[in-house]
Amino acid sequence: MRLVLPPGVSETVFQKALQALAGVVGKQWVLATDEDRETFMDFYAAGDADLHVPSAAVGPQSLEEVQAIVRIANEYKVPLWPISRGKNLGYGAAAPCMSGTVVLDLARMNRILDVNERFGYCLLEPGVGFFDLFHYLQANKIKLWMSIPANAWGSVVGNALERGYGYTPYGENTRNICGLEVVLPNGELVRTGNGAMSNSVSWQLFKYGYGPSWDQLFCQSNFGIVTKMGMWLMPEPEATLGLNIQLPNPDDVGWAIDELAPLRMRGVIEQSPSIGNSLRFVASATQRSQWYQGDGALPDDVLLEILKKNNLGWWTVNLRLYGYDEVNEVHARIIREAFRKHVKQEIETVKWHRGDSIENSGAGVPATNALQIINWRGGRGGHIGFSPVLPAASEHVLKQFHSTKKRYEEIGVDYYGSFTLFERYTTNVNMMVYDRDDQEMTSKVRALFKVLIADAAREGYSEYRTHISYMDDVALTFDFNHHSLLRLNEAVKEALDPNGILAPGKQGVWPRARRPARA
Amino acid sequence: MRLVLPPGVSETVFQKALQALAGVVGKQWVLATDEDRETFMDFYAAGDADLHVPSAAVGPQSLEEVQAIVRIANEYKVPLWPISRGKNLGYGAAAPCMSGTVVLDLARMNRILDVNERFGYCLLEPGVGFFDLFHYLQANKIKLWMSIPANAWGSVVGNALERGYGYTPYGENTRNICGLEVVLPNGELVRTGNGAMSNSVSWQLFKYGYGPSWDQLFCQSNFGIVTKMGMWLMPEPEATLGLNIQLPNPDDVGWAIDELAPLRMRGVIEQSPSIGNSLRFVASATQRSQWYQGDGALPDDVLLEILKKNNLGWWTVNLRLYGYDEVNEVHARIIREAFRKHVKQEIETVKWHRGDSIENSGAGVPATNALQIINWRGGRGGHIGFSPVLPAASEHVLKQFHSTKKRYEEIGVDYYGSFTLFERYTTNVNMMVYDRDDQEMTSKVRALFKVLIADAAREGYSEYRTHISYMDDVALTFDFNHHSLLRLNEAVKEALDPNGILAPGKQGVWPRARRPARA
Repeated sequence: MRLVLPPGVSETVFQKALQALAGVVGKQWVLATDEDRETFMDFYAAGDADLHVPSAAVGPQSLEEVQAIVRIANEYKVPLWPISRGKNLGYGAAAPCMSGTVVLDLARMNRILDVNERFGYCLLEPGVGFFDLFHYLQANKIKLWMSIPANAWGSVVGNALERGYGYTPYGENTRNICGLEVVLPNGELVRTGNGAMSNSVSWQLFKYGYGPSWDQLFCQSNFGIVTKMGMWLMPEPEATLGLNIQLPNPDDVGWAIDELAPLRMRGVIEQSPSIGNSLRFVASATQRSQWYQGDGALPDDVLLEILKKNNLGWWTVNLRLYGYDEVNEVHARIIREAFRKHVKQEIETVKWHRGDSIENSGAGVPATNALQIINWRGGRGGHIGFSPVLPAASEHVLKQFHSTKKRYEEIGVDYYGSFTLFERYTTNVNMMVYDRDDQEMTSKVRALFKVLIADAAREGYSEYRTHISYMDDVALTFDFNHHSLLRLNEAVKEALDPNGILAPGKQGVWPRARRPARA
Repeated sequence: MRLVLPPGVSETVFQKALQALAGVVGKQWVLATDEDRETFMDFYAAGDADLHVPSAAVGPQSLEEVQAIVRIANEYKVPLWPISRGKNLGYGAAAPCMSGTVVLDLARMNRILDVNERFGYCLLEPGVGFFDLFHYLQANKIKLWMSIPANAWGSVVGNALERGYGYTPYGENTRNICGLEVVLPNGELVRTGNGAMSNSVSWQLFKYGYGPSWDQLFCQSNFGIVTKMGMWLMPEPEATLGLNIQLPNPDDVGWAIDELAPLRMRGVIEQSPSIGNSLRFVASATQRSQWYQGDGALPDDVLLEILKKNNLGWWTVNLRLYGYDEVNEVHARIIREAFRKHVKQEIETVKWHRGDSIENSGAGVPATNALQIINWRGGRGGHIGFSPVLPAASEHVLKQFHSTKKRYEEIGVDYYGSFTLFERYTTNVNMMVYDRDDQEMTSKVRALFKVLIADAAREGYSEYRTHISYMDDVALTFDFNHHSLLRLNEAVKEALDPNGILAPGKQGVWPRARRPARA
């Protein structure tokens, strides 16, 4: 594997920089062999991993080491790509946007610094994984619940900063952030919110602080390196009540959204119901070749046959109520009435009470089995996620669903989409699953991705998050006043990071010094 | 009244600037007589209105006029202090932090641009008052509820940007912000969140947008002038159930907070209960001299006598449940049980069902009668608010209550405080009511304010908001890493506003060009 140097940095200077970094973290935590670099590439990439090749990785274990690394990066003009645990799967994993960037791997900074049961919060370093925090809470019998994404391999901090989400009433993880500690691109240390008062007793209690509030400026951002994050956790409820509903027809997603959206906005449902195509359950448990050997996307009749054999509708709705049992029953009655207008099938009800096993509670119990879908196509599987945000309304959901499904079929990829319903919007995560070694397929996927961005933008749909290969493409769809918000971001970037050392290109924000690398 | 020019601006240049402004808005909307200036001063000030004297005011009626004004301000280096409606009472009203600043009065930009009942939001210009929006919703029979502050004379936008709050489940108005249009200090126009996509269909639905999210950076901020604000409104619930509880003793506020805090965090109570000293009801309806003619603060025995005559406890708790009647009843039972452990008095219950008069619903119905308290002391009344943020815990609440009450008594002012309980913190708004013409009293109040800031900072309590005279004092209590967050704010300020034209000194953030004016 060819070493790709940071733009404008000679091999000699680069080696000096690595030596200086080794002086900070120790030789064993500067990873610069070909094998090391391979480790930090996007191992799910659709044939374009070589656009995002790290030059090395460095693994600090403390705040002071992070600050020292940042100072060295400025001195040698070596760019850094901070990752928490590097499990940003489907969006680029650990790989940097710009080739030649050094990955700043924060996985060794994995302390759980505080968990407060009375006030429902934790304070974490970026290396803490969902499994780590879960085991900590369980081992210490702390009655606080997490909200975890479908694949929970990654970092709690990384997920919240990238605006990932889970499925409890605390589902928007970014909204649970309460106070950050951040190393700025010049090495300066700040604490946001009330953490800016050194003896504050409410850093993790009050989100806003005094004056402009910064937490969300460090999300999907290259303005700073988050070294500590406060996060609200949900107190264990008295009971939960889950409802799982099969919707027989593709277009049922329309009325389902229209029935659920007002219940979600009114707080009858406080978590985010998910409506996913039921094929995903089959795709996680089996391989495609067991069902179908033909070319192209799975034909509709074959799909229906598969679903029938597995007792599944076209879509599966999963939702859950959290609180006192009596209250959940009232709300469940209202939800059942809404669905009874449209479907006759039995609605599966799952009840949990405090003291029962946590497995079926609706608490965020980390798992990784959602990842098994990448085996669906055979070969060395990979996936990429296209994730637009839509109004929680049938007219938008149906339009987007039909348009995307048609696009998938055009290139012979099976449709795999889910809608997760928040208070007023829905995300629509579309997975494309492919055999990474099938070059024809991956090149079609890459082309499709750009088409999907353009299709969505034409309808006024943005993406809530995107893969590193498409950060500029998505940024360009934010076109109000000739991309004035991007210019604002770049003005702030320039002020905070004149050497352009931090995560060039992240979410389309390029420091001036690195703009030649912009696609 | 002496004209106070902007620092570094000669009278000739200033007059030229005013002429240029008149060319934009018309002569009648450049207000620069002595009487005009008087209008924009802090008319409740505790004897220090002369520290915040505007040089003029200018009243645009459109976005384009705001942009033109900003360009003129940059050309002539004339600073601007944007106000929405100027009713920031107790915190400086319409007056600028730095004397000589021109008030940019946005009250004429008062269009309600959009109200969407299905998705529960509105899009407002800054001049829209709480009464305006309320009447619009009523007149159009739109079943969305507002959350209004105790005194609702002001602007909806201004209140949210200053992080004011109301008492419905949508009480933290700043949290309801979803998408801003902002004129930057260089005249550039941005839209935040999904508004950065020109044809977005979810500007008011999805808060975060793509990349760093800016809404909270424009709150309590001098980084831009908000010309449009999206805000979520609450769908009218099926029913509400209010509980009003009298607590007989001063220290009861401790256990009340400890009983309520977990119920608030768990969502049994979704709005923010208020616990205020009951004297405020008496102080709003009568004058002090009717009850007591002596010197100093109201003695405890006199206070008890007054409360007894009015059938009031020392504190009054007001809280309310919103949702289905059956659900409210379950939650009310739990709350009543919590209070029955401590008090035997009857708990007043107020029920409302859809279709009943909105007056007793718990909807945000705007009113201004809370302002009547300024007549309590006699003379030309005024008030100032000291508003720390505390953990929602008795040990903090009791400490802060006793400490503040003692300080009030030391200078002979009657204690007037309330605690409003949010998910994990409580605000503690302390009003000081005075006769503005009693110089001895107002000078004591000013001295007390600094003592209260210092007392609070010693305990790790910050302020959620403060009066323009104390913005620097409060900023200095945010001392982590030698005030590094303030330095970050000032770095961004410098990048966005090199001429220092926008609201110098707001929340302690000074542009470099204006730092000589810092106290």
